[in-house]
Amino acid sequence: MSTIGEVIKCKAAVAWEPNKPVVIEEIEVAPPQENEVRIKIVATSVCHSDLYHLFEYMHPEGFPTVLGHEAAGIVESVGPGVTEFQPGDKVIPVFLGQCRECRFCKSPKTNQCELAWTRVSDVILASVESRFTCKGKKVLQFMGTSTFSEYTVVHQSAVTKIDPAAPLEKVCILGCGLCTGYGAAVNVAKVEPGSTCAVFGLGAVGLAAVMGCKDAGATRIIAVDINSEKAEKAKVFGATEFVNPKDHNKPINQVLVEMTNGGVDYSLECVGKVEVMRSALESCIKAWGISVIVGWTDVYNVTVKPLSLLCGRTWKGCMFGGFKSKDGVAQMVKAYLEKKLMVDEFITHNMTLDQINDAIGLMKDCKCIRTVITLSPQ
Amino acid sequence: MSTIGEVIKCKAAVAWEPNKPVVIEEIEVAPPQENEVRIKIVATSVCHSDLYHLFEYMHPEGFPTVLGHEAAGIVESVGPGVTEFQPGDKVIPVFLGQCRECRFCKSPKTNQCELAWTRVSDVILASVESRFTCKGKKVLQFMGTSTFSEYTVVHQSAVTKIDPAAPLEKVCILGCGLCTGYGAAVNVAKVEPGSTCAVFGLGAVGLAAVMGCKDAGATRIIAVDINSEKAEKAKVFGATEFVNPKDHNKPINQVLVEMTNGGVDYSLECVGKVEVMRSALESCIKAWGISVIVGWTDVYNVTVKPLSLLCGRTWKGCMFGGFKSKDGVAQMVKAYLEKKLMVDEFITHNMTLDQINDAIGLMKDCKCIRTVITLSPQ
Repeated sequence: MSTIGEVIKCKAAVAWEPNKPVVIEEIEVAPPQENEVRIKIVATSVCHSDLYHLFEYMHPEGFPTVLGHEAAGIVESVGPGVTEFQPGDKVIPVFLGQCRECRFCKSPKTNQCELAWTRVSDVILASVESRFTCKGKKVLQFMGTSTFSEYTVVHQSAVTKIDPAAPLEKVCILGCGLCTGYGAAVNVAKVEPGSTCAVFGLGAVGLAAVMGCKDAGATRIIAVDINSEKAEKAKVFGATEFVNPKDHNKPINQVLVEMTNGGVDYSLECVGKVEVMRSALESCIKAWGISVIVGWTDVYNVTVKPLSLLCGRTWKGCMFGGFKSKDGVAQMVKAYLEKKLMVDEFITHNMTLDQINDAIGLMKDCKCIRTVITLSPQ
Repeated sequence: MSTIGEVIKCKAAVAWEPNKPVVIEEIEVAPPQENEVRIKIVATSVCHSDLYHLFEYMHPEGFPTVLGHEAAGIVESVGPGVTEFQPGDKVIPVFLGQCRECRFCKSPKTNQCELAWTRVSDVILASVESRFTCKGKKVLQFMGTSTFSEYTVVHQSAVTKIDPAAPLEKVCILGCGLCTGYGAAVNVAKVEPGSTCAVFGLGAVGLAAVMGCKDAGATRIIAVDINSEKAEKAKVFGATEFVNPKDHNKPINQVLVEMTNGGVDYSLECVGKVEVMRSALESCIKAWGISVIVGWTDVYNVTVKPLSLLCGRTWKGCMFGGFKSKDGVAQMVKAYLEKKLMVDEFITHNMTLDQINDAIGLMKDCKCIRTVITLSPQ
């Protein structure tokens, strides 16, 4: 029976308040409005940004919400004005939209989108324009996507069509972490062949950054993490060395500078901690080092010596790895189908929506790379 | 009578200790040793970095010294191993050397020089390898140059030959400030035609940055200074607008963001104050703004929100405007002789060495752009 034009009742994980387990609830998902697409989520994965909102972000006004932003699904119906999608299309939602019409989308210099900025508050990472209700209450949409739900409604600028051959329970992780890390190396640092790189933090984003450095031709890739169990995994993706800062008495930047005759050419911070951002910057060689902030925080400020830049370094940051999101995700799915990109190797656990708090716990305890939650059979 | 091989007794301004007037003394300048060049300084100008060492730097171990690093002169004699220079050559000393042989000099990515780093301590900006003595005491060499002296000895990597047609009492100011500001816009920010720029601080460096933005084709150049008397001068060099932060109740970055529909494409900090560095960064447009730190400080740290970079901005810094110093100075002198570059317009005062404390006072009170001190007739 068609659900087009109807309110859909379905299961979702609702985060009612910060620092509490999410609750599996029956929610109502209203039909898509103008320029919106309603998606049946097939698989979603847990990313650290979900935990950031739940445990660290300190914005209670961002609740209740449905977390989740790394997912893949099938278009159920489209609202008026949507011509790019039709029911049955395989899609991946993108938390950083690409409207293709604003001055940012039209510039090759950025992957930001002005429309995306107006749609999602960067204070609460949520949008008042949500189609969710639960127990008579409005439930906010998280990062414009909210994928811990059997159905979600997103703006057409925040979803991309992918190759119908793609296995959704695998490519779902291209919705955030993999593209974020990989692109930071390839698109933002623009790692050059023969260079030396350091990647700080070996979660999915950092491991993808390692893979990006390798694909860009770096010959020396130093993976850095305070958990030595990550060393083996990092080598799978291309790391040539592993350093645990806890094994050294000196600051890690000094260790790296000594290991590399002055510093690495490129460093990528994939942790989201301000002290690591500073270390990553200072690990780069003075004359031409490029450091990219990939990890997210807006709770703390980062403090550096002006001389760290005056000596010739460049400091950048990016979201979604600098990929124009619709184009980038479709292209990364293609690379995976052509066996040019590792994806399966990032997935360490598979669960169902009922186990979502376990999946969140695994991520919180750094016991997984990616846990994929399967919601519906494909 | 030839002075080659002899100790030269001459006048110099000796800075005996921090926060005190410099003293005109008779000093001894030993002959150049291997790879060194002794120069008769014809004209030198006072740059803010001299004052920085004298008044702000808080490194008493950097004294006694002869300040001055922006100058032009004539080679008096050369030490063993010097083939690039001969007595009579017109030259400009360069505080950031270019040895042409180290991995930095050989790379197009940087204007740093490894040899220069080993020659001048970046802690006290001075070198123990000085040829100066005064009243039986060793006098340190400042920034590898020490030009507030009738004669100085520099390493051959820290001096460049210029066109003999160049008037030394004019082109002396190409030894630091002008190249630093101009190059920051042209070489480091790489300002693009049609872009919008903001330049913070309208001393010689900032005015040269304005000129660089204009020559690079920027169509909107917003000059920012807390002294409104600088507005007219800024327009001489190409500023299209002037903003005094004191005329606004909002932070200057917010003023600029509102004036420019989201922020400038490029901002250049030419003050050397950490709070201005932060404002300059936040004045740039989020998606692709590039901010360059040009002003020098290593007393304070700068604190920013990671989000200021994560949104897509790039933060850089540079010394000597990113020019490989020997090449850059010679090329800027040529541009001046071909009337493609304003130089005379920066010189607001002319004095003699005896008036050096007056010249320092003018700079300290922001009452000059450049004061040229003439030491010897050409």
